[in-house]
Amino acid sequence: MAETSIDSLKAVLAQKRASAEAQGQAIRFLKASGASPSEVESTLNSLKAMKVEVEVLSKELNSRVSENGGGNRDAFRQGVVNALERRLFYIPSFKIYRGVAGLYDYGPPGCAVKSNVLGFWREHFVLVENMLEVDCPCVTPEVVLKASGHVDKFTDLMVKDEKTGTCYRADHLLKDFCKDKLEKDLTLPEEKAMEYKRVMATLDDLSAKELGSKLKEYGIVAPDTKNPLSDPYPFNLMFATSIGPSGLSPGYMRPETAQGIFVNFKDLYYYNGNKLPFAAAQIGQAFRNEISPRQGLLRVREFTLAEIEHFVDPDDKSHPKFKDVSNLEFFMYPRDEQKEAKPFKKLQLGDAVKKVPVPLMVLLIRTGGVQSSKCVGIINNETLGYFMGRTYLFMTSLGIDKERLRFRQHMANEMAHYAADCWDAEIESSYGWIECVGIADRSAYDLRAHTEKSGVQLVAQEKFAEPREVEKLVITPSKKEVGLVFKGNQKKVIEALEVMKEAEAMEVKANLEAKGEVEFFVCTLGQSVTLTKNMVSISKEKKKEHQKVFTPSVIEPSFGIGRIIYCLFEHSFYTRPNKAGDEQCNVFKFPPLVAPIKCTVFPLIQKPEYEEVAKLISKALTRARISHKIDITGTSIGKRYARTDELGVPFAITVDSSNSVTVRERDSKDQVRVSVDEVAAVVKDVTDGDSTWADILSRYPLHSSSSSDE
Amino acid sequence: MAETSIDSLKAVLAQKRASAEAQGQAIRFLKASGASPSEVESTLNSLKAMKVEVEVLSKELNSRVSENGGGNRDAFRQGVVNALERRLFYIPSFKIYRGVAGLYDYGPPGCAVKSNVLGFWREHFVLVENMLEVDCPCVTPEVVLKASGHVDKFTDLMVKDEKTGTCYRADHLLKDFCKDKLEKDLTLPEEKAMEYKRVMATLDDLSAKELGSKLKEYGIVAPDTKNPLSDPYPFNLMFATSIGPSGLSPGYMRPETAQGIFVNFKDLYYYNGNKLPFAAAQIGQAFRNEISPRQGLLRVREFTLAEIEHFVDPDDKSHPKFKDVSNLEFFMYPRDEQKEAKPFKKLQLGDAVKKVPVPLMVLLIRTGGVQSSKCVGIINNETLGYFMGRTYLFMTSLGIDKERLRFRQHMANEMAHYAADCWDAEIESSYGWIECVGIADRSAYDLRAHTEKSGVQLVAQEKFAEPREVEKLVITPSKKEVGLVFKGNQKKVIEALEVMKEAEAMEVKANLEAKGEVEFFVCTLGQSVTLTKNMVSISKEKKKEHQKVFTPSVIEPSFGIGRIIYCLFEHSFYTRPNKAGDEQCNVFKFPPLVAPIKCTVFPLIQKPEYEEVAKLISKALTRARISHKIDITGTSIGKRYARTDELGVPFAITVDSSNSVTVRERDSKDQVRVSVDEVAAVVKDVTDGDSTWADILSRYPLHSSSSSDE
Repeated sequence: MAETSIDSLKAVLAQKRASAEAQGQAIRFLKASGASPSEVESTLNSLKAMKVEVEVLSKELNSRVSENGGGNRDAFRQGVVNALERRLFYIPSFKIYRGVAGLYDYGPPGCAVKSNVLGFWREHFVLVENMLEVDCPCVTPEVVLKASGHVDKFTDLMVKDEKTGTCYRADHLLKDFCKDKLEKDLTLPEEKAMEYKRVMATLDDLSAKELGSKLKEYGIVAPDTKNPLSDPYPFNLMFATSIGPSGLSPGYMRPETAQGIFVNFKDLYYYNGNKLPFAAAQIGQAFRNEISPRQGLLRVREFTLAEIEHFVDPDDKSHPKFKDVSNLEFFMYPRDEQKEAKPFKKLQLGDAVKKVPVPLMVLLIRTGGVQSSKCVGIINNETLGYFMGRTYLFMTSLGIDKERLRFRQHMANEMAHYAADCWDAEIESSYGWIECVGIADRSAYDLRAHTEKSGVQLVAQEKFAEPREVEKLVITPSKKEVGLVFKGNQKKVIEALEVMKEAEAMEVKANLEAKGEVEFFVCTLGQSVTLTKNMVSISKEKKKEHQKVFTPSVIEPSFGIGRIIYCLFEHSFYTRPNKAGDEQCNVFKFPPLVAPIKCTVFPLIQKPEYEEVAKLISKALTRARISHKIDITGTSIGKRYARTDELGVPFAITVDSSNSVTVRERDSKDQVRVSVDEVAAVVKDVTDGDSTWADILSRYPLHSSSSSDE
Repeated sequence: MAETSIDSLKAVLAQKRASAEAQGQAIRFLKASGASPSEVESTLNSLKAMKVEVEVLSKELNSRVSENGGGNRDAFRQGVVNALERRLFYIPSFKIYRGVAGLYDYGPPGCAVKSNVLGFWREHFVLVENMLEVDCPCVTPEVVLKASGHVDKFTDLMVKDEKTGTCYRADHLLKDFCKDKLEKDLTLPEEKAMEYKRVMATLDDLSAKELGSKLKEYGIVAPDTKNPLSDPYPFNLMFATSIGPSGLSPGYMRPETAQGIFVNFKDLYYYNGNKLPFAAAQIGQAFRNEISPRQGLLRVREFTLAEIEHFVDPDDKSHPKFKDVSNLEFFMYPRDEQKEAKPFKKLQLGDAVKKVPVPLMVLLIRTGGVQSSKCVGIINNETLGYFMGRTYLFMTSLGIDKERLRFRQHMANEMAHYAADCWDAEIESSYGWIECVGIADRSAYDLRAHTEKSGVQLVAQEKFAEPREVEKLVITPSKKEVGLVFKGNQKKVIEALEVMKEAEAMEVKANLEAKGEVEFFVCTLGQSVTLTKNMVSISKEKKKEHQKVFTPSVIEPSFGIGRIIYCLFEHSFYTRPNKAGDEQCNVFKFPPLVAPIKCTVFPLIQKPEYEEVAKLISKALTRARISHKIDITGTSIGKRYARTDELGVPFAITVDSSNSVTVRERDSKDQVRVSVDEVAAVVKDVTDGDSTWADILSRYPLHSSSSSDE
């Protein structure tokens, strides 16, 4: 029954999505073909209505799907989180002072896992790709974050309890109200229910004004006090501070590490021998002063980011090493599949990047009217694809389940206006699909913004082997003539003239030459003006160019390290009965690469000779740089295994004689017998990845003891 | 001439120091023997005067010493800093926006060095000692830093230009004024000169009021505008922010990482099986909002700390692995040598920790009256000594010159009142001796402060094998009787009674029993009161104790990573002429452990076969996880060597045939010939430290080519 209704929902949703997408394509086509603003707007309005319907249906579908097994998910998560907190993978920060929402410490095993993940990231990306790693401060002056747009736009909408001043996220209150009504009000008329669902589905798109009027309409008050609420207003999510003692130099704790790289572009480009492409990377803390953090370890106020900014010539986004990853096959969720509510699917990376010829009409729609190439692949370019492949390898090497990892393409309306393409690596967890890595082609946006604000040209030069003859569009408005006619609007008209694209400029030129005047739409004025011939000269000139000077495009893979680690914990966790069968034991099946401790050393029983051997082995492990723990307590060996299984320690050495010891593998519980002299080297071999456990099994005699694993 | 006057200065200084120290000892003895406050104070005043004289002389001596070769030092530093900035070891942060004082980025090679230093720190301390590493947020709520004392005391004195609001460090202005007068005013009377010197020597000890009146007296105004200045007031050096949106939860960016460990003591102790000793460690960013940063890379507003908190039973500070370091010999500068203006000296660690019997009188003086043991070593305890030894090994493995590294003991008046002993690892640089690591026995101060503020007991329990009979002092004041007589002072009298030490309490008891009343000094009232017998009962009771509950002592080695790295750069830098002899080339002689890149790969000439071989070797190096750089530009081989020498790359592989290549060592410029198949393994061997360059020289044929290093 539940299944049928989910299937029918899917069908309806697919249909609605298809029409919304068609409408969206129509708008892009209208814009590209120069339709009038009013025409565009009316089409836009009907698209908006369609999108609301799609959102309502898709949220409904999602909630239906997650109801199936939702209870299990919560119980599973509770099991993981309990194990993580008991074994100090995490500690709520400043716990003895009752903590601070959204701040967590990594305790010893968590810290070791984090350090392993970052070490592997550095090896897998920085070392292998010869990236230029930098390390910039967290404290950032306002001017930098003004240029990047964070000062003005990095906000959430907030309301305040008018009497106590307590703050709430406006969308949370509205969502909670609707959810509560839908769940608890059994007499709710169908029409009203539909309305609440619609509100919940469109929460992200509501303006401050729209949100405020909804809160008023529903009579929503402060949940704790029932006091009236303020109007919603934007709250900037950056932690503000002041640099130096004067109070006159505002600064913020950086919300991302990327800006530190962008402002250093010039030096890094020089360091790279003034050659493109190259990538810079940074690992570091980032800060977001969330209004009211929810979702436990996934939404925190301070977290570690690992970001790459790969700078390329916008005309050549090929990647020399793409062939190394082109055979990889993994789950992708391209735009088209999402539109049609189809499931995500396994694709070969090479196929997804391959450019296929596309009819011009479709092409114009796909690219939003910019005719950049006659061939388009699902993934915009090789470099983007290369990083998707490398990210897939990174995640799966850590132990992320490849069946619960997908790359979801951003819908056109999801992306920033300047982005050429964007794919999120999402990991399925008990909270649903979680964005853990964003891989975006941000075009030239960031470097241009900092060039403009700082006055320093963040550009690349490419010398041509031979000078090239190029035809350049030259638009020269006459300030005097324009000023005489348009007075105060002079500047806006001149700016609009100067930014004309070639097609439009040639049309204006033709009209002016034919008729002596032309109607010209100035978008900053919101109206058309009449141009006459003396106001502007338009021509094409041939020039010899010796080099091209351009702002590089940047492709940015940005890794939320804390989220990846949390998902890794969920994917690694399982329980199994103890030998007596009366208890469930927790296991984290970390690969040796990320395991917080690689190996434990236990004397089987408390006996001085065994302890001596254990200490000898411990020294050999230290020399081999294998992190390990020696446990000489008298606890039963079964309990000691259970403890280390819950820490995810892959191997345990048990000393039961003076010459040889056993090595136990965590998941299979298989044990082999190895001589004392060899054991450190064996463990090193298998933790470094030079041998597999299967190799070890074939090389050493299996040990089976009834007493070993009770 | 200069030498003679330095020597005579040294002799006078030694004499003055000895008398000041004797005076200080007298005060401690007076306090310990219960002298009256007025008696103590008058002795204190004369000590203060002596200390001023000592400081004046010692600063004079220091400046004389640094004048010898001061110019060379500046030129040397300029050479190092130029190389560091040109090769992007450092970049002034946000340079395109004209930067922010006291903030620097690590560029690619600097970042690689930092990452190597931190990796080695983690291996050398965390892994080898099985420390519990944690990772806490930088954002810290006020309550934590209130408890630690930072909110109230982490300040510098500041003055403001009364018209423009520009801020200055008050002591900087006073110092600059005096220095200027001394250097430029040739008619300065001797008496006035002495006064300025005295002021400069005592800058650190001046109160806000004293500083203010000096500024007024000298007519010091704002240097840029000549406007009048405000009175000095304390400016807190923490970056302030606000947690959450309400503006009601003040927070700060942590000024050190240690507090994150202290607040987690309870969980960490549990994690360690409720056993002492254990050490926790943390690497992370710390922040200090300096009023006006000077001293370039040594005094910055954001920096990386690596801190260890080793928790021990205060009654047993022995260390099981002390014997591993006890034979080390290195420079120490004990308190006694400093007092007597003797030079620092090489001591064997074992000898410095060895406890020697000390006459009781001297002992009481040394320990400030606490009779903790009848034997005292130069270094207070084995654990402190162990960390000094491990720190020495850490620093010298990085490449810090052991002849320019010393451990300086804090003078009694330099240490916090709660500290038992403290040694700074100081490195000699062009700025003089720089404190880079502080190794302090902080006793129970921090855990007690957080216990008090949070109400959570941060204590350890030790169960006795057998219950022990102990005699306990029991002081029971009668609230009623005390209140009747002392009214509003009731609380202060009762508190004073309760904190009496055993000797004092038994004396009070004896007097009360003999005379029925006793004069009792209440320090919080600043006066004595008359106690009668009914006001307090004092007794000794025998109890059986099954365990002891105590606040652990903490021994804290705290590493300023940025300072160590900067000093390492200075110690690694040298210049040598190029082959033509017409130019000086820069070299950083980093050991492979810290070198930003381990190896370069060059085709000798531009030739496709050689490039192919170079790429093959590059792949093999990547597989072996050796960071390297391949340079296929046509630049002359000599220039390419010079470039990599300036980056401190220890080895260069030059491809001059298809079968074998040469490997060049940076400092000797020796080259050996190695087959293409073997070369990656050879480089790995020597960079991992498994072989020395001498081993390689003996294993492979020397290559001598006239063309190689021009």
